[in-house]
Parts: sequence; structure tokens; C-alpha cells
Amino acid sequence: MAYVTQTAPKSAFPKLKRRPFVRYFTLDPEVPFVLDSGRKFGPVTLAYETYGKLNAARDNAILITHALTGDSHCASHGSHDPEPGWWESLVGLGRVFDTRRYFIICSNVLGGCQGSTGPACYDPATGRPYGMRFPVITIRDMVRAQKALIDHLGIRRLANVVGGSMGGMQALTWAVEYPEAVGSLIVIAAPGRAFSQSIAYNEVMRRAIMTDPQWNSGDYYGTPGPVNGLATARMLGMITYQSDESMMLKFGREFVSNGHHDPFDMRTQFQVESYLHYQGAKLVERFDANTYLYLIRAIDLFDLSWGHPSYEAALGRISCPVLIVGVSSDILYPTWQQEEIVTILRSQGKEVEYEVIETPFGHDGFLIEFEKMEPMLRRFLSRCCNQAGHLRRSDSACLVDA
Amino acid sequence: MAYVTQTAPKSAFPKLKRRPFVRYFTLDPEVPFVLDSGRKFGPVTLAYETYGKLNAARDNAILITHALTGDSHCASHGSHDPEPGWWESLVGLGRVFDTRRYFIICSNVLGGCQGSTGPACYDPATGRPYGMRFPVITIRDMVRAQKALIDHLGIRRLANVVGGSMGGMQALTWAVEYPEAVGSLIVIAAPGRAFSQSIAYNEVMRRAIMTDPQWNSGDYYGTPGPVNGLATARMLGMITYQSDESMMLKFGREFVSNGHHDPFDMRTQFQVESYLHYQGAKLVERFDANTYLYLIRAIDLFDLSWGHPSYEAALGRISCPVLIVGVSSDILYPTWQQEEIVTILRSQGKEVEYEVIETPFGHDGFLIEFEKMEPMLRRFLSRCCNQAGHLRRSDSACLVDA
Repeated sequence: MAYVTQTAPKSAFPKLKRRPFVRYFTLDPEVPFVLDSGRKFGPVTLAYETYGKLNAARDNAILITHALTGDSHCASHGSHDPEPGWWESLVGLGRVFDTRRYFIICSNVLGGCQGSTGPACYDPATGRPYGMRFPVITIRDMVRAQKALIDHLGIRRLANVVGGSMGGMQALTWAVEYPEAVGSLIVIAAPGRAFSQSIAYNEVMRRAIMTDPQWNSGDYYGTPGPVNGLATARMLGMITYQSDESMMLKFGREFVSNGHHDPFDMRTQFQVESYLHYQGAKLVERFDANTYLYLIRAIDLFDLSWGHPSYEAALGRISCPVLIVGVSSDILYPTWQQEEIVTILRSQGKEVEYEVIETPFGHDGFLIEFEKMEPMLRRFLSRCCNQAGHLRRSDSACLVDA
Repeated sequence: MAYVTQTAPKSAFPKLKRRPFVRYFTLDPEVPFVLDSGRKFGPVTLAYETYGKLNAARDNAILITHALTGDSHCASHGSHDPEPGWWESLVGLGRVFDTRRYFIICSNVLGGCQGSTGPACYDPATGRPYGMRFPVITIRDMVRAQKALIDHLGIRRLANVVGGSMGGMQALTWAVEYPEAVGSLIVIAAPGRAFSQSIAYNEVMRRAIMTDPQWNSGDYYGTPGPVNGLATARMLGMITYQSDESMMLKFGREFVSNGHHDPFDMRTQFQVESYLHYQGAKLVERFDANTYLYLIRAIDLFDLSWGHPSYEAALGRISCPVLIVGVSSDILYPTWQQEEIVTILRSQGKEVEYEVIETPFGHDGFLIEFEKMEPMLRRFLSRCCNQAGHLRRSDSACLVDA
């Protein structure tokens, strides 16, 4: 049996945010946590936040899974909590993921650096941070740890699992690996397996980090670490999260208006360069480089078919209504990757809806285009959750579960 | 007056190829070579190769301009020259750029590292390699140097100027800046100005090089230099030269078959990663990192409108028949960028043809899809050059000019 602790794993990552509403769940150390690699690993702790209240039937829970640099803070916890979450516009009172109706759970992934066990944590066996001695993990390993959390919370079946990007990979994995535990599924801007080009982008990012001498084979804790490498990786990431069109709309060919003005001075920056530098520096302030390496590796390894006879067979295990959402201008996980999933599910006679967010914002559309996503998600959720009868008015009048 | 020298500028770049058919042209040091930045610069030497023979009327010359990492060796010089050129399939006896009919000129760009004056060359004023003391140059500066070469060769009007990618930018610049000297124009997979996304990719590449400690502010000659940074830059470049589809077709999700086999070993590589590493290492063997920085900066600064009232006004100066070719799957300079040029030229009543190479190969299509390009180019060339009466059978019977 799993048990709860209010203790965060000891972390060497100095920028770890200590958020007041974060709880910690440590998997039962007596039960081996076996990774996809076959390696037994532990202890495993997940940092998580919840919103709203679990009803008596325990069937109004929604799991929100986060993207690469996300965390458990998908929304603020009301007026006592000034920090907005990464899906603030979608989660809260009266929002799509309405905390009056649903019990929302969001956990930092296994391998993460915002409270869950990851490469920046101290290995109790050695007393040193794991660094690159952390085991290679998969999206399925992340989901397996989340499943233990859900079990621990006494939830047998989630009303919905929803995520975008790496979060969408986790959501798909939930529906494939635990079909009996997923009432409905929303996958946004994610593929069912990583394709070559995204692996290639990830490898360039890896190289940028691992060739930074300050990376020091991952043993950089207590030093500034590979700030250049991680910033360069993020800069590339930011290009893949946007689009040709959105960058042109935002930055054009304008130079920055402060600093060097001479276009023939190598130090003079176009606005788009300055923006990328800013984004690179910002990530360094909130993310751990080794964690970045482990999570993008998990994305590379992501393939729903692993452990199943085929990709189709894996998708064939899904037994709930599915909403797949693509972003029209996504260059990282283009819509054909969502359409592949939709086509297979439809050919299997499954209940699947497909929507496209029409936007120039690229992959990041799922973190921006709330007005376009909101009706899609609301329609699907209301249909699925009413149909399944997950909600009872008597349960759903409560506000945040303090 | 310009004069010829058979002497290459002294270069600190150890991988400079000494090709037997390369000639050198040094601009007249008595005539100031004024860069777009306003800076007077010299001495300027261009390495160039020619194919075929200039006819008596001196009107069968074609200038081929090269892309970022290209050089003057667009084709081999027959059986005495075993090294194929970067456009081998298009240049030679009986090929589109038929050396029996045309006098082909191809020069390494100003700022290049294959024989022309560039950052790896020794500055005669200091006796040291320029490094980052080399002036920032533009595509127009490159073209201005080429114009001096063409003048020196006694050619008043080129039958055609043709180039792909950065070569296409040069070709466009020729037609805008020297309309009287260009008989016809072929631009492949190039924009008329650099847009934000391509500047962004270039900035990530710059960062990768400039944060490599071995770059040493550009003063790395005599050392291995920023081999990691340049390799990382090239790896990213290679992604932008291909497409999602072509990478998937070539590499899928396969791991490399030699070396580490365990997918849970961080050292195990997907084939696409191994390919990128190979390409990165290969470029380091043939290209200078500072040169890379200067050329991608020239690309960022590229905007035909500079020095003209508007972008439209610049294009309005073109007075020859134009063929614009896009590549359907180009993610670096997508077809809308070629269509922008075509639309403006058509609105001005100019003679412009537009063709699209339908291919999954992405930007690199112009270095691969010769069978598809060949009829497009042949049709256009034969129409333009016959119409203009540039060729006389009496002149064109000669073979290579030794």
C-alpha cells in the first residue's frame, strides 16, 4: 500500500519553487517500482496539487498532465495563491475544468524538477544528487507513477485525462495502459509516437547542453551548471513551439530599440533574437538541465506500441470517448500526427472527435488559444461526463478542498 | 582597373581545399571597396572557377551563386578532375548549364572560407587572421565583389544568374542592383528578405558556436576551434534543410544497428541522431566557424529593399525574365516566400515564371531533385537565351576552357 508524506524529496536544484499548495506522495517502498527499462527504482515521490473536491462516488476526478517544462501548478488556488498556473484560463471556478464540478489533479512528472523525484534529487543510496545516474525513464513510467497516486487517492476511474504536448503523450498512455481507469480522454498537440524530426530537434538540444563544459557530465549541482547549453536548447525549443507566421507577426525584421543600433555590429540584435535570449535565460532560472535531458529522452522513446503487438493494437485498447485536438500551425507535432491517431481509432469504430485550433501561434497554441479551445473542451467534457453520469449536484457544490 | 592574381589570400583555415582549377581575382586595391556598412575594406580576393568558353560576343556567360556552405566548385572539370561539384548533375557537357553553350562562372563568396577573402584569412594590416575583426558583410557586398569579377572578365551582361538558397539571395540582388547586367534570373528556394524564423534558427546556431569556449571570441586559429559549437549549428541546419516527411522516410524510429543497443542507455542513438552527428562532424572538417557566423549574419541582414524606397521598388528594378522556383516541403524558406516575390513581380507586369519542386526532401531539394528541376530550368533557359540571341553556334562548339 502506498502512503502519503508531506515531505518533498531532497533536491539539489536551487530554483525549486516551494509552493504552499503542493502535496507529496511517496510510493510504497516495499512494492518495487519497475521501470520500462526493467530497473527497479525508488524511492519515488510525486509532487501534486488538487483543485475542487472529490465527490462521494469518487468519479469526478480529472487528471491534467503537463508538458515538458510544466509542473503541478496548472492553476492558482484562489485568492490566497497569487501565482497563476500554466492553464489558469481553463482550470477554476466556472472554467472548463470547473472546480465546482470536478476534482482536478495535476502532478509533476517522475523525472521532473518541481518537487517530484528526478535527476536533481539526492539519491538516498549515495547521498549525492542522481545527475546522470538517474535511470532513463519513459512516458509510461511517468504514467505508472501517476497511477499509484490516483490509486492512493482512492480513485478507480478518472472522469477524464487531459494533456497537451508531452502531457498529451501521458494522456494517451493512460488510455492505452489503463483503459478501465479512464472515462474520457483529451489529447492536444501530441503524437502517438515520436517521429524523426522531433527526435532530431531534441538531439540538437541535448548536444547544446552536453557539450557545455559546465554540464560536467551532469555533476554540476552547486555550480551555475550548463546555463549556456540549457539556454540554447530552450531557444531552439521556442522556435519549434511557434510558427513562421507567428514569429513574423510578432517580430518582423525589427531590431531591438535599445542597446546597439548599428546593423553592422555583430552585437546588434533583431527583436526575435532578443526574445529568444530572454526565453533562454528565463528557463535557466526555473529548470534543471539534467531534467531537461531526461524528459526529452522520454519523449524520444515515446511510442504507444511498446509492449503491444502493434501501434494499432495499442490504440485498440482505448475504450473511452476520445477528443483529439491539433493546432493548425504546429511545426513540432503537426496535425498529420494527430490525424494518424484519429484515423486508426475511427477505423476501429471508436468514439473519437477531432478538432483543429486554427491559429498562427504554432505548438504553443494550446497554452494561448484558450478562447478557441474552451468550446471544444466544454462540449466534449459535458457530453462525456454527463453521459457517464459522473457528477452529482450534491457533491459538486463544494469549493476548493483545503 | 582590376587585375588578376593567381595567388590565394593567405588563410588560417587548415581545411581549405587547394583545387587545381580554382583561379583568384583580386580587386584593384586602388579603388576603394566600400561595404554596405560604409566601411572601406580590402584587399578583396575571390576564388572562382569557370567552365566552358566565353564566346566572342561575351554574351554566353552564366553566373552560378552558391549556398551557405558551398564554394566555387559547382561541377568537376572533366576527367582530369575527379571531385564532383555541388551541382554536378546540372553543370557540364549536355547538362542544363551546358558547358558547350555557356561560359559558367562560380565564385566563392566574399566572407567565405574556400579561397575568397574571409574571416579565416590573414589581415595584411596586422599579420593575424581577421577572426571577428572581419567586417560584417551583406549579400549585396558579396554581389558587389562578384560584379568586379564579371567586369574583369570583360562581361557586360550575364546571360543568366542562378542560385539556390543563399545563392538565390545573391541572384535576386544581382537583378535588383545591376538590372542592366542580368539577362535572365533563376532563383531557387530563396526569399527576397530574411524572415523572423530563419533569423531565429541562425541565432541558435550562432549561440551554439559563440558559447563554445573553444571559439575564444573568434581567435581560435591554430587550435581545433569550436568543433562542438559548429557541429551543433550544422545539426540544426540539417534539420531545417530537410522535412518532417523526408526524415521519417529515411530514419523512422530506428536505432543505429552498431554500438549501444539498449534504448535505456543514454548513449544509444536513433538513426536520425547518428546521421546528425555525422553531418555535424563532416562540416567541421570542411568549414570555418567564424565564416559560418559571418555568412548567416549576411543572410539575416538580407533584405532587397535596403537602399531602395521599398521592397516593391527594389523588385521593380528587375528588368529581365525571371524564374522563381520553390520547394514544396521547404521549412526554411517556405514557398509563400517565393510566392511573395512572384506576386509583386506579376503585379508590376514583369515576365515571371513560378515553379514548385514537389518533393518531401525539403530545402535541400534544390541539391537533390535534379530530375525535377532539370526540365524547368532547361525550358526557361532555352526560351530566354534563344530569345535574347545570346548564343551563336560558331562560339559554342568549344569544350572546357583550359
